[in-house]
Amino acid sequence: MAKAAALLEHPTRSRALAGRLARCTPAAAAVVRFGGVTRDEIPTPALLLDLDRFERNLVRMAAHVARHGKSLRPHAKTHRSPEIARRQIAAGALGVAVAKLGEAEVMAAAGIRGLMITTEVVPPDKIDRLVRLATQAPDTLVVVDDASNARDLSRAAAAAGVVLGVLVDVDVGGRRTGIAPGEPALALAREVVSLPGLRLRGLQGYAGQCAHVVGWQARREASRAAMAPLGDTRRLLERAGLAVEIVAGGSTGTFDIDVEMPELTELQSGSYCVMDIDYRRIGGRGGASMTEFETALTVVATVVSVPTADRAMVDAGLKAFSTDKPFPPEAVERPGIEYSFAGDEHGRLTITDRDRAPKLGERIEFLPPHCDPTINLYDRIWAVRGRSVEAVWDVAARGRSD
Amino acid sequence: MAKAAALLEHPTRSRALAGRLARCTPAAAAVVRFGGVTRDEIPTPALLLDLDRFERNLVRMAAHVARHGKSLRPHAKTHRSPEIARRQIAAGALGVAVAKLGEAEVMAAAGIRGLMITTEVVPPDKIDRLVRLATQAPDTLVVVDDASNARDLSRAAAAAGVVLGVLVDVDVGGRRTGIAPGEPALALAREVVSLPGLRLRGLQGYAGQCAHVVGWQARREASRAAMAPLGDTRRLLERAGLAVEIVAGGSTGTFDIDVEMPELTELQSGSYCVMDIDYRRIGGRGGASMTEFETALTVVATVVSVPTADRAMVDAGLKAFSTDKPFPPEAVERPGIEYSFAGDEHGRLTITDRDRAPKLGERIEFLPPHCDPTINLYDRIWAVRGRSVEAVWDVAARGRSD
Repeated sequence: MAKAAALLEHPTRSRALAGRLARCTPAAAAVVRFGGVTRDEIPTPALLLDLDRFERNLVRMAAHVARHGKSLRPHAKTHRSPEIARRQIAAGALGVAVAKLGEAEVMAAAGIRGLMITTEVVPPDKIDRLVRLATQAPDTLVVVDDASNARDLSRAAAAAGVVLGVLVDVDVGGRRTGIAPGEPALALAREVVSLPGLRLRGLQGYAGQCAHVVGWQARREASRAAMAPLGDTRRLLERAGLAVEIVAGGSTGTFDIDVEMPELTELQSGSYCVMDIDYRRIGGRGGASMTEFETALTVVATVVSVPTADRAMVDAGLKAFSTDKPFPPEAVERPGIEYSFAGDEHGRLTITDRDRAPKLGERIEFLPPHCDPTINLYDRIWAVRGRSVEAVWDVAARGRSD
Repeated sequence: MAKAAALLEHPTRSRALAGRLARCTPAAAAVVRFGGVTRDEIPTPALLLDLDRFERNLVRMAAHVARHGKSLRPHAKTHRSPEIARRQIAAGALGVAVAKLGEAEVMAAAGIRGLMITTEVVPPDKIDRLVRLATQAPDTLVVVDDASNARDLSRAAAAAGVVLGVLVDVDVGGRRTGIAPGEPALALAREVVSLPGLRLRGLQGYAGQCAHVVGWQARREASRAAMAPLGDTRRLLERAGLAVEIVAGGSTGTFDIDVEMPELTELQSGSYCVMDIDYRRIGGRGGASMTEFETALTVVATVVSVPTADRAMVDAGLKAFSTDKPFPPEAVERPGIEYSFAGDEHGRLTITDRDRAPKLGERIEFLPPHCDPTINLYDRIWAVRGRSVEAVWDVAARGRSD
């Protein structure tokens, strides 16, 4: 809690940010406003966002990056919702990062700018789509880790009369995409500079292998070691006379670690706005649970069967929660039960306290194991404040991995 | 292969069924027809259905149940697609089973009849929706495992002037929903019979714990033991003078086991029409791999990065495949690589044969681990025949777990 208090130690700035959030008027088309609907009337299973917690998360992250002189371009793959992106930008973010072109198209169509596509765009038809997107949203950034791909991008951009802003994607040990740091990255950056349809803007390095290291000190050591070559590469490019405006990276797990790195200009943290069991369990600077951001996202389910004294079934299973983490959903403020998956549409509640046995029809909220793939199962987010439903937001880029 | 040959030993019937399938004209609104688009032009990641394999699966299952004097009401939770349901019905199915009311509403709106909702409908607002659905699709069946729920259903149905067809849901060891077999099930059936808004139609028993037992003989023993109490319960009800028209159960794993049970009237197998790695690996009567049904469903992905000699990355990760099974997607007819998950949007290909290293932009198809939650990630199914795209079908009930 010490850390959370520290994040809010600039009350003037935080109040100003809260005010900006409150004035943010979303596009009416994508928001359904509800009068008098309560949290208990939402058909289950459903995805709920606690607005008080969510807004505090936005304020805390904005204050954090401002205090460290960094920028924020939060990863919208977490939520795939233009409404959330709009609120993040209203709280000071430069724009949003997205993993895929399909997400970028949805965000751009909703009026979101400052987009960064963090996965390489390779097939010719997607390069055509990217160029069209850049015509509509010229500040869109894309990453490259291959010279032939850079040439393909440049050719298509030049033919369309646009210039694509490009970051060189550097592998900082995550063993996903990205060219090796140092000389290989410099050579690719020089190639980008030489191409008429591209403009080198900087570097990206995502150390996904560090994001979920349990324990803050261990995570800090892992992230500093992983990210150091990215900083070295920035300096190598600058010594070679190349301008590096942007160095992007970081996760929710390393949000208060990567800001220590002088070469980094902007954070890409995504999950912080809603949180999940996985990020809570890795611990924060202050202790064994990450308390800097609040769990704002829940799945509400209904008890549809209580067939025995030791078991009840809810209507939320493999299609209601992410399943990629090795731990189950967790009931919120509802002791006496333990959830386990029991098929596409069923969760089995083992009744551990028979004095608190669930009743048929009882509604129970659960924290999802992993926020991103959980949100991707739903078409809408029910935005709630206390017991009231304030709005329903489209997960407009749901399924847009293309 | 002996089994597959046996399934096709009635060529006249199979040809007749194939003809019925070919004449099945889907509603134009939900189908986009493609002229000249090839499999290689589909934006990735995407869900592909091989129509030749899919149609053979429908023909084989239809011949199988006909030969055993059983009916088929395939579980549409697998595909959530009215177009597939329509083809299953054209091939002889009574209708489709669905797990949830939301799915039933989508199917009914698309003109599908013979619906069976296999999960209890409990909250008052959902009971209201169910009654409205029954007005539109009066042959809809619903399951109950609790007397108070049966009374709630009856009250709402009677008030609306409809009669709901009801199956008593019996727990056959799956430890999900369902009342205990024998006397408890009989007592609930008597309650249903006594209620003015309900009509007892029979029993449901789903032995999900048997569906994936590896090895056909072991699976047969498990399923026969689990399902025996369902047969006993049928006879108990009949001795008590209650009519039992329908006894529904079974899975793709037990499709050729449960038909041996004289008391069973209809199979609920779902996955057979598309198959997946999980069902293939449990083995069939003929051997270690289930060959009676063909894997018809793939996810096509594109190589977007080849950063090192031992690794390539594709654009399909946790949001492109189910993740509930402990084995990864499997490349189809593409040796030399092994897939592992690497985040929301990335799959890591470990290159095991450097002579066959993937090239940037290469398209690779993968079998999904588990078909149901994989399909539920996509808004559409690309129906392909050979290299051609024949149609695009809506996964219209995607996300409708409510």
